[in-house]
Amino acid sequence: MKIYDRPGFPNPSRIRIVLAAKGLDQAVEFVPVDLIGAEHKQAAFLSKNPSGVVPVLELDDGTLISESTAITEYFDNLDGNPILTGRTPKEKAVIHMMQRRAEAYVTDPIGLYFHHATSGLGDTLKAYKSPDWDGREAMGQREGDKVRASLTYFNELLQSRPYLAGDAFSMADITLFAGLMHADVSGITVPADYTALLDWRVRVSELPSVKNRSGQNFLQEDLTRLGF
Amino acid sequence: MKIYDRPGFPNPSRIRIVLAAKGLDQAVEFVPVDLIGAEHKQAAFLSKNPSGVVPVLELDDGTLISESTAITEYFDNLDGNPILTGRTPKEKAVIHMMQRRAEAYVTDPIGLYFHHATSGLGDTLKAYKSPDWDGREAMGQREGDKVRASLTYFNELLQSRPYLAGDAFSMADITLFAGLMHADVSGITVPADYTALLDWRVRVSELPSVKNRSGQNFLQEDLTRLGF
Ligand SMILES: N[C@@H](CCC(=O)N[C@@H](CS)C(=O)NCC(=O)O)C(=O)O
Ligand SMILES: N[C@@H](CCC(=O)N[C@@H](CS)C(=O)NCC(=O)O)C(=O)O
Repeated sequence: MKIYDRPGFPNPSRIRIVLAAKGLDQAVEFVPVDLIGAEHKQAAFLSKNPSGVVPVLELDDGTLISESTAITEYFDNLDGNPILTGRTPKEKAVIHMMQRRAEAYVTDPIGLYFHHATSGLGDTLKAYKSPDWDGREAMGQREGDKVRASLTYFNELLQSRPYLAGDAFSMADITLFAGLMHADVSGITVPADYTALLDWRVRVSELPSVKNRSGQNFLQEDLTRLGF
Repeated sequence: MKIYDRPGFPNPSRIRIVLAAKGLDQAVEFVPVDLIGAEHKQAAFLSKNPSGVVPVLELDDGTLISESTAITEYFDNLDGNPILTGRTPKEKAVIHMMQRRAEAYVTDPIGLYFHHATSGLGDTLKAYKSPDWDGREAMGQREGDKVRASLTYFNELLQSRPYLAGDAFSMADITLFAGLMHADVSGITVPADYTALLDWRVRVSELPSVKNRSGQNFLQEDLTRLGF
């Protein structure tokens, strides 16, 4: 199996955490994609994922899977014990609800804020992502406000439960964790008095699947290396 | 079990098709929500779903599930035979990928186009959904263009397979079908020469779970009754 991605980026990080949590780190070969140079907006990559984003999983039979949620469903179900996406109908429902909420409240709007209201990944990509249009800046700022409001929502939610979907760590936590990494580097940070959210973040960052082999948070390491 | 929704609307329709496909029509009580009067933007409803949208499923133990994908996961897995969301890891992955694509390419942008660039559901709701902001119209139009481009994408895809995720009807088809209903009433229609997409639409509309008891398409009936 191959994964086309760029290490350290938020959605690729979601899948790297999933692989670690499922003990599948060694099962895939990573193929780097030059996001800064807009390699993912050229025909060769678009034939793998018409959405023009990473990560993309390629199975040995050639099947291409994009969307981090879909890739997570694949890996989590391989051993018949879906700890990240839910074992019972109710677990699956609550996890998918919170996962979609983490995307709609944080990962989607922070991407829009980052690419439309900040310098994003630079001019080459900007020409594809966000050619000048009337309202671009206003839209980006509105999406940033959405992310800020969502921090309040998640902080309140985590006052009464250890993880987004309840007692167990799940795909939804992975999505929010990656989204907050992206928010950090975009300049939208969790306020210091949001202790429930900050405590959750420490708890997640200390999970074996999130810490890297040398005991450091590999996500932060990758981000630093990439100059975020 | 209760479902809070408004019959005839696109996302509620997704769940009604799921219930019919799973033989669960009689298992839930429907509670109508006044979307035109913005009942779903008031505190009572927001405590059920902070996103302020329908449908919401309430289980007998009080658990609240929003997001149509999450509700679909619940009903589809109750009998241990998930025909709509996939039985194998690969089926689940392909279905979730195409489901997310149907949402990101059609149901999400058509909602944005409808509420921001057209008169939407009227002035009462508009005050909550889309208070005047610089760029609202431009953003709405861009989302409409996205929907138009996606019709080309899905038409091409359906030239080589009967359903979005391959040989079998799935949750992804339900999402696209509901999204195209919304596009129709918003004035974005499938071009007459997009025969693969149009043929797929006829095929889906004739499935027993999509036709209503009297043999008519209940979705279209509801839309007409609601004055769309
Ligand atoms: N919904 C997608 C989002 C993927 C995404 O936005 N990936 C980012 C990297 S974290 C990307 O490719 N960005 C480059 C771009 O948008 O051009 C998923 O869940 O995988
Ligand atoms: N992502 C949600 C979308 C739900 C949604 O947008 N529902 C519409 C009805 S089809 C709604 O409540 N619209 C009223 C509003 O947005 O204020 C889902 O999958 O259920």
